[in-house]
Amino acid sequence: MTKTFSVKIGNISVGGGAPVVIQSMTNTSTQHIKETADQIIELHNAGAKIVRITVNNADAAKATPYIKELVQKHANIPIVGCFHYNGHTLLNEFPECAKSLDKYRINPGNMGFGEKRDIHFESIIECALKYNKPIRIGVNWGSLDKKVLSQMMDENSQNKIHLSSEEIVENAMVESALMSARKALRYGMSENQIVLSAKTSKVQSVVRVYKKLHSLSRFPLHVGLTEAGIGLPGAVSTAAALSILLSQGIGDTIRCSITPKLGESRIQEIKICKAVLDALEIERFQPKIAACPGCGRTSSTYFQKLAEDVQNFIDCSMLQWKAQYQGIENLNIAVMGCIVNGPGESKHADIGISLPGSGEEPVAPVFINGKKQYTLRGDNIANDFKDIITLYIQNNFSAKK
Amino acid sequence: MTKTFSVKIGNISVGGGAPVVIQSMTNTSTQHIKETADQIIELHNAGAKIVRITVNNADAAKATPYIKELVQKHANIPIVGCFHYNGHTLLNEFPECAKSLDKYRINPGNMGFGEKRDIHFESIIECALKYNKPIRIGVNWGSLDKKVLSQMMDENSQNKIHLSSEEIVENAMVESALMSARKALRYGMSENQIVLSAKTSKVQSVVRVYKKLHSLSRFPLHVGLTEAGIGLPGAVSTAAALSILLSQGIGDTIRCSITPKLGESRIQEIKICKAVLDALEIERFQPKIAACPGCGRTSSTYFQKLAEDVQNFIDCSMLQWKAQYQGIENLNIAVMGCIVNGPGESKHADIGISLPGSGEEPVAPVFINGKKQYTLRGDNIANDFKDIITLYIQNNFSAKK
Repeated sequence: MTKTFSVKIGNISVGGGAPVVIQSMTNTSTQHIKETADQIIELHNAGAKIVRITVNNADAAKATPYIKELVQKHANIPIVGCFHYNGHTLLNEFPECAKSLDKYRINPGNMGFGEKRDIHFESIIECALKYNKPIRIGVNWGSLDKKVLSQMMDENSQNKIHLSSEEIVENAMVESALMSARKALRYGMSENQIVLSAKTSKVQSVVRVYKKLHSLSRFPLHVGLTEAGIGLPGAVSTAAALSILLSQGIGDTIRCSITPKLGESRIQEIKICKAVLDALEIERFQPKIAACPGCGRTSSTYFQKLAEDVQNFIDCSMLQWKAQYQGIENLNIAVMGCIVNGPGESKHADIGISLPGSGEEPVAPVFINGKKQYTLRGDNIANDFKDIITLYIQNNFSAKK
Repeated sequence: MTKTFSVKIGNISVGGGAPVVIQSMTNTSTQHIKETADQIIELHNAGAKIVRITVNNADAAKATPYIKELVQKHANIPIVGCFHYNGHTLLNEFPECAKSLDKYRINPGNMGFGEKRDIHFESIIECALKYNKPIRIGVNWGSLDKKVLSQMMDENSQNKIHLSSEEIVENAMVESALMSARKALRYGMSENQIVLSAKTSKVQSVVRVYKKLHSLSRFPLHVGLTEAGIGLPGAVSTAAALSILLSQGIGDTIRCSITPKLGESRIQEIKICKAVLDALEIERFQPKIAACPGCGRTSSTYFQKLAEDVQNFIDCSMLQWKAQYQGIENLNIAVMGCIVNGPGESKHADIGISLPGSGEEPVAPVFINGKKQYTLRGDNIANDFKDIITLYIQNNFSAKK
């Protein structure tokens, strides 16, 4: 598969065969410097390699260099400025803002109308060139360039084969992204400075749009579902869209645009991105626990409790393990409820326990690297098993230096 | 794409172009008749079209016809018996059990060893023929037929190009399923009586196995990740595996094998299946809410609260709406946080609200079928918007007869 171009955003490479980069965006008011810097660091600690902030007015633009400074005291995290409507003004009026950002996200649908559209676009590209910054051309069907759309609708009405309005919108999104990229190249940007995105809130539509973008250009693609929604539907649709595309090699950087529930941490979206990359074995982030759904054969409550207990043990220990052990995220654990698939699934894992189903002898064999090594029984199985996991890690993962 | 064969399981068609069927399995002890029947009805009410129960011993086999009878008082739900090790004995010794079930799930890896394996298999097929029941040949990498596996390992060691052990396991799973299906056909079953599955707990592996099965046969496929695990990783891996396969037209019936957390309802797995089919627009189950993630432009808390409020409103009203209105599940709503994509995304929806971002005029335009129709303001926006949704439904969805 032809590689996408490599784009350097701060210290992070996107595209060109680099690992898929998880990114996120703050939802604090950008003018609140400390709050925004704190959230950037929180998102970064959770796994975001690039964080975007809105730069929507003069106060936000003024705050940006201070946010960057504060963040850099903790870690070298690329910060992207998200511009709509007034990006050309803000970047020109606040050069410290323009300098401090690591990438400009611009939306070709929100650049003004008529001749102004091109003047504003050129003005932003000039800033990008002046400060040597990459850009993302971020198309969204919620703010699609009206000129491109109406042109394509006119063309469609003259064609013999009529496309559906959904197809026209999708084609217009692709065209808007590519046309803007060509323009940016004409104005002097290099192929290694442009990332593209074109998001809709419908999985199948996003898949079609990104497949087209991928087939028509080599710009690295920022992939995601926009306005994914709240709760389970948001998580599942995002997982669906990302999985379908990533499994076909499409996507260089990803974002999960779910709405946080009240009180839900902003990092939930990072957790979903990590779970997708983990599931597809694109990048491992944490030990995998294979656990069966239980059925009439399993002593359901006991088994579920153990599975949950082990999952919590992993979740709580990861921060420490990650600092201590090389490659700990590749560990595979199985927690199984009966003899049907218990021993087999346990043998496929690094460490597996097969609890006795109802009617089975009340002993729980533990398998290490495919071989039965212990037999647990009694009331302390959960703690014994966690001790075995700890021991396995100590013996099988080398310490980080 | 060539259609799979159509298999009738009770009153439900699987394969042959029928809609994708969600199924589930009880985790009550089958001998507890009332409890099991209640869970079957609960799973069915949540959206499972087929429910499986384990039939693991004489007590379970004796209970089965009573469970069927109890369930049928409420609805005509096909019940599948899950057999391992002793299926041949139970089906022969308890003809009322054999008669009452709508399908037998058999696992070629758990049929005994040596000559007995084939005798047991034939004996189950004879029962299926006698009572005219379809079967699922359900292979699982946790209980893979050792004979097939060791044959393929021997073959591999004699080959010039050596496969990885993962590839051998995957090939053995496909071979075990297809070999058993061929055997069942030889014994007299028809192509319209056999469903296949071959599950592993790894997404990429499941995808490869099902692609092979799909390319090598026309038997309808029961698709799922086995032992998917607990919480977010379980939901995301399942969504990933199902989405990749279903988007390629692979999968006639699906199951989500997550481990319920303690206290988590068994129907969580049905919710995930429905969310996948909803996301892929294979079947709509409930109105979709497009809601943005919020950013520094949005008045985050207020916006999140409204999005969650609307989501809860939908969730709580669906049972009633579904009974009242034709096609209500196809409704699309947008709840957006600012002007950037707010009006645009709202216009793509049937009903959309675009809340004012920070610095915007404190009014919330509401769009109906793509046109701005109301302007909400003040403290009562949430209730006003829900009233608009209710009114829209009353005016746009015809009453069920």
